[in-house]
Amino acid sequence: MNAPIRIAIFGYGNLGRGVELALRQNPDMALTAFFTRRDPASLKTLSPGVPVYHADDLAAHAGEIDVLILCGGSARVLPVQSPECARLFNIVDSFDTHARIPEHFESCDAAAKEGGKVALISAGWDPGMFSLQRLLGNCVLPDGQDYTFWGRGVSQGHSDAIRRIEGVLDAKQYTIPVPAALESVRAGENPQLTTRQKHTRECWVVPAPGADLKRIEQEIVTMPNYFADYDTTVHFITMEELRRDHSGIPHGGFVMRSGVTGENGETRQMIEYSLKLGSNPEFTASVLVCCARAVARMAREGATGCKTIFDVPPAYFSPKSGAELRKALL
Amino acid sequence: MNAPIRIAIFGYGNLGRGVELALRQNPDMALTAFFTRRDPASLKTLSPGVPVYHADDLAAHAGEIDVLILCGGSARVLPVQSPECARLFNIVDSFDTHARIPEHFESCDAAAKEGGKVALISAGWDPGMFSLQRLLGNCVLPDGQDYTFWGRGVSQGHSDAIRRIEGVLDAKQYTIPVPAALESVRAGENPQLTTRQKHTRECWVVPAPGADLKRIEQEIVTMPNYFADYDTTVHFITMEELRRDHSGIPHGGFVMRSGVTGENGETRQMIEYSLKLGSNPEFTASVLVCCARAVARMAREGATGCKTIFDVPPAYFSPKSGAELRKALL
Repeated sequence: MNAPIRIAIFGYGNLGRGVELALRQNPDMALTAFFTRRDPASLKTLSPGVPVYHADDLAAHAGEIDVLILCGGSARVLPVQSPECARLFNIVDSFDTHARIPEHFESCDAAAKEGGKVALISAGWDPGMFSLQRLLGNCVLPDGQDYTFWGRGVSQGHSDAIRRIEGVLDAKQYTIPVPAALESVRAGENPQLTTRQKHTRECWVVPAPGADLKRIEQEIVTMPNYFADYDTTVHFITMEELRRDHSGIPHGGFVMRSGVTGENGETRQMIEYSLKLGSNPEFTASVLVCCARAVARMAREGATGCKTIFDVPPAYFSPKSGAELRKALL
Repeated sequence: MNAPIRIAIFGYGNLGRGVELALRQNPDMALTAFFTRRDPASLKTLSPGVPVYHADDLAAHAGEIDVLILCGGSARVLPVQSPECARLFNIVDSFDTHARIPEHFESCDAAAKEGGKVALISAGWDPGMFSLQRLLGNCVLPDGQDYTFWGRGVSQGHSDAIRRIEGVLDAKQYTIPVPAALESVRAGENPQLTTRQKHTRECWVVPAPGADLKRIEQEIVTMPNYFADYDTTVHFITMEELRRDHSGIPHGGFVMRSGVTGENGETRQMIEYSLKLGSNPEFTASVLVCCARAVARMAREGATGCKTIFDVPPAYFSPKSGAELRKALL
């Protein structure tokens, strides 16, 4: 039995806690430390035996950690933290601002090469498993069309946007694929779908006492970028109902590749991948953890620089040997 | 623009023809030659400009071919042909006898290493894309259960078994997943399913004039290994009906991973991958072709020995650069 892969978690929100739990399902890895930008004494983890250090002390622990999993947000934290950490550690992050992935890749690549480390970025399910399915679909069926649908699931950004409206105490927003659009794609009709035709938005809103519900609803459904281009329904509920019925963070979605083969494109071929996730952060965390295993192996083999899920031989995600995998799963 | 990857096809049945057609969708590759064990003059390909050589002349053309795609059968042809060819060529095959993959891997690995070549075996959809999904599901959700369903699709082996019955002129057999079983898995019920509960078998049979239909039906539904463990329905039709309604070779299926995460396994997570293939051999061929691209790249990088889809960084299946893939698909 090899020594376990030593993992540290940087950032302890929903995602960091998800990684902590996912590591318990992977006995070839050992949770070695937490790092936080808060007061370490304030962190209540589920792993009382594992030390919590301040982010300022990262460098002092570089020799004790094989892979550092970054669990901060993509908007402000990761663009700075990932390249900084990649100079000292092999890292995995879940950077998910699709449009900025190329620049994030470049900054992490330079830093990781400087430090002789491996940085695997944009792991999770989208980007991540969904990206991998899009890539495979495009390679196997070059003559075809891609479709990605999200949901049913909670969009944190849209929920936050509702909470910023005057008179709103709390809110949860679900993104929902339009069933007719899914069916049209499945039927091989290759539809051109507008934003409105692909997804609807469902809002559960707790209003402040005496708030003007009509105005809140209008502000939501007409909000540019977030809701104006969608069919949006708004439900007002009590705080108790919100807590009872909408406390989870489910998500998921569909990646489809509709293609043709044959002498004149006469043969229809359809690939569909879907996720139904009881917890978005716990699933994302599970992906981060198996990516950390791959990073540890690539680093042992002498690789350096930035990687994505596109660059990892799938066997590297597994603790099993090639022979075991071929026998059991091929 | 790089020089195209020079591909040759060995074996010209449904699969070889599928590869020939798939190459037309991949302009970074060029079909350079066919090889056959039949009389080359007897081969009517769809590519009149491409030479057809006899299998005995393979060695003479080794310098002209980057990857040889083997399109023979798994029962008798590939166990001999793949290692023989892997001494002289980089190869891809679709060896699909799951239980014998480990020994096929070993013989191809020894031969490819001897010849300094790369041999990618067991490409296609099962083994192949389905295997990859099983592997990913196991890595991301280590606490879970695997389900693979096949169909609705034509099983060549079962169709052949019916054709061997006395009084049968021709037949086509469809394997069909049981909808209730699929739904139970999707609902996260983690059912233990018997053979009978997973798939049904539907047979379309053309009887000889005056044949005893009752006996034929009995022989089918009680046939050990093939039908006895399944709920099987038998329909008798005319040769014209068989040709009109059952001439295609559709197939497909489902790979599901039903897992849990969380502090006490309280969170359900579900991954589902499905294929609906208008043509089984054309889709398999499309997978072989993008695997040939990956083999060419691995060979250029100096790799040798036997590989499977588990060993290929997914970006290698694509003709696009890493930067293009990250921008467009991640």
